[in-house]
Amino acid sequence: MQNFTKYLKTKANIAEPEFQLLIKKVEFRNIEKGEVLLRPGEVCRHSFFIENGLLRSYTVDDAGKEHIIQFGSENWIVSDRSSAFFNEPSDLFIDAIEDTEVVLISSDFINEASEISSSFRNYNQIALQNHIRHQQKRINLLLSASAERRYMNFIKLYPDLTLRVPQWMIASYLGITPESLSRVRKELAHKNFKPN
Amino acid sequence: MQNFTKYLKTKANIAEPEFQLLIKKVEFRNIEKGEVLLRPGEVCRHSFFIENGLLRSYTVDDAGKEHIIQFGSENWIVSDRSSAFFNEPSDLFIDAIEDTEVVLISSDFINEASEISSSFRNYNQIALQNHIRHQQKRINLLLSASAERRYMNFIKLYPDLTLRVPQWMIASYLGITPESLSRVRKELAHKNFKPN
Repeated sequence: MQNFTKYLKTKANIAEPEFQLLIKKVEFRNIEKGEVLLRPGEVCRHSFFIENGLLRSYTVDDAGKEHIIQFGSENWIVSDRSSAFFNEPSDLFIDAIEDTEVVLISSDFINEASEISSSFRNYNQIALQNHIRHQQKRINLLLSASAERRYMNFIKLYPDLTLRVPQWMIASYLGITPESLSRVRKELAHKNFKPN
Repeated sequence: MQNFTKYLKTKANIAEPEFQLLIKKVEFRNIEKGEVLLRPGEVCRHSFFIENGLLRSYTVDDAGKEHIIQFGSENWIVSDRSSAFFNEPSDLFIDAIEDTEVVLISSDFINEASEISSSFRNYNQIALQNHIRHQQKRINLLLSASAERRYMNFIKLYPDLTLRVPQWMIASYLGITPESLSRVRKELAHKNFKPN
């Protein structure tokens, strides 16, 4: 829980007495690679803060093809915010790409932390706005960017994931074919581009 | 200002005394068709609540092609929330597709209304979460849906726009070619599908 502690104390600026109260209200869980945390039709009851490991959220279309909405590694939060907030069935799967240690954050926790601490409230507000910013950029990339620009953006957003995630999943996230991704990677290698 | 009044009083549940205070703090403006309200590189200082008319936000790629991020007609708010919240340069254009009457909502207004009224604060929180929900659905559609499903979704989201917006703009919003949109519309007509 080292990362989650740092998240609450440093990023959300929660002081020690409030921290002691709040830390009792979260749950820690070890998730095995391949384990499914959320299925379409279920209401998303938690946000998953990732201590160690790697989760993804994705949809499956009528033809059975997976489309990756989000990756989350250390210090990321993976969730279906809409399902959790509006208490409505999710469209998403969430599962583990690696063995993963998560902190389960409930809506109750967020409400309580927001009541106790104005700095948490501010931090949560910034996190929401950041989510909107990130989604807006993603929409723009999906509408307008070449496969190369999408991949370059992926590397910038997720610098630690290019070697941890199978290529087909990266292609799925980018909305391009695995063949396009392979071509882009070859061209970048040819230009001596170093992602890591 | 009939729509904006309804928005504050009914939707955000602002009582008369607070309403009288707040209504003084917004600005009304008539925008001519084609007028540009925001350009890339500028910080977005306002959200535009649409009383009457039609705005759009869009990006222009390196080849000069426009990609429409959002349409907004009566009772919608068009903005670059990220630019406004983080006080950073926008990537977007916002302009008027029709002569439009807007209410200019500043960050100061939102902060003040949130302080005065807990129901406004709640409403604003729901609006943020709605925005996230809408963007998430859009990302999923762009990643996984056929041209027909994208168009059907457009009609559902913007039922009054199919006749007000040029076809090429709808295709741009959907991330499909005008030819694909034309084909989809013909197929739907053939199936006797009535959008309006």
